[in-house]
Amino acid sequence: MTDQTVLKAGTGAAIRLARGQRLTIVNTHGTQVVDCWALNAGDLGEHLSMPHCRNQWYRLTPRPGDLLVTNLRNPILRLIADSSPGIHDTLIPCCDLTRYHQLGIKGHHASCAENFTTALRSIALEQVHPPPPLNLFMNVPMKVNGMLAVAPPDSKPGDLVELEAEMDCIVVLSACPHDIFPVNGADCTPKDVAYAVR
Amino acid sequence: MTDQTVLKAGTGAAIRLARGQRLTIVNTHGTQVVDCWALNAGDLGEHLSMPHCRNQWYRLTPRPGDLLVTNLRNPILRLIADSSPGIHDTLIPCCDLTRYHQLGIKGHHASCAENFTTALRSIALEQVHPPPPLNLFMNVPMKVNGMLAVAPPDSKPGDLVELEAEMDCIVVLSACPHDIFPVNGADCTPKDVAYAVR
Repeated sequence: MTDQTVLKAGTGAAIRLARGQRLTIVNTHGTQVVDCWALNAGDLGEHLSMPHCRNQWYRLTPRPGDLLVTNLRNPILRLIADSSPGIHDTLIPCCDLTRYHQLGIKGHHASCAENFTTALRSIALEQVHPPPPLNLFMNVPMKVNGMLAVAPPDSKPGDLVELEAEMDCIVVLSACPHDIFPVNGADCTPKDVAYAVR
Repeated sequence: MTDQTVLKAGTGAAIRLARGQRLTIVNTHGTQVVDCWALNAGDLGEHLSMPHCRNQWYRLTPRPGDLLVTNLRNPILRLIADSSPGIHDTLIPCCDLTRYHQLGIKGHHASCAENFTTALRSIALEQVHPPPPLNLFMNVPMKVNGMLAVAPPDSKPGDLVELEAEMDCIVVLSACPHDIFPVNGADCTPKDVAYAVR
């Protein structure tokens, strides 16, 4: 794939998509979770919503061809292609500073919540509270006793997800900076990913 | 239980709880789903959040003793007691007019989203977009192929859930008016429930 932009480990980006444009997200090293949000470009209060997506899919995760819908039940994205095993998370919120403090971190720690706000500010938009994201490549298995766990991604280097915009929207990506649990690989080390728009 | 207030089938109520007060919700007929929200009384932007609860519980559903937390990860309620089989839903958004139109209804249909707004207005508060609720008694089984379904509640007449306020908050309840799928029982007929505060 040509014209890839590297999204550095632990950072975020906000990407404007016109309806019909496609965004490809590449898991360069195969081990990195990418939190993904989408906001209606004309109304930031309308956003990609995981509960409404689950009601649309009657599954916990999307498959190629599935529409991704907003809190107002309008299509905002469509999953076009997915070369990974299709293990993505729709259950867990993005990491934030409060979560890192709960996990014993003192002071500042980069977070997907901070990346969400910073990325939007980089395109002159202000939105402080990130909606629950689509956590691409995040592996949250359910054990047979019903307990959820966090495991390293099942994807392999170069796995990609392709999304098509169903409305003019802003997609925010965060290469998750979590380095405490093996959410971003067994070595607990966030890695670069990449994306391309066409 | 004394001093119960009946919540008529298909309607909602907003209930102020001071920290430490307890709210009991009774599934009078055993077949009725009750959508449940909680908002910080001092900041309506802080609300009970299912993704943050799942991250707290590492389960899809709460058990007695579990804290229910907000989008800012603060405890807002605690599940004190549950005489039902513990089948509640945290995955599906509340019903709204758009959903009923998708299901073929023409014109108006009562909805949990409308009940949320109307109930808050009854205590002079304005909040238009309901967060994803805790759907008490709602039975969303997962089939072995990963597909979600909507089935009649597993609860029996008189089953109750008791919640304790961990902060001064407003709880909104909606006796779900859904009458198309058997979400509120095999007869697709919404029923009265009841609640009590102490």
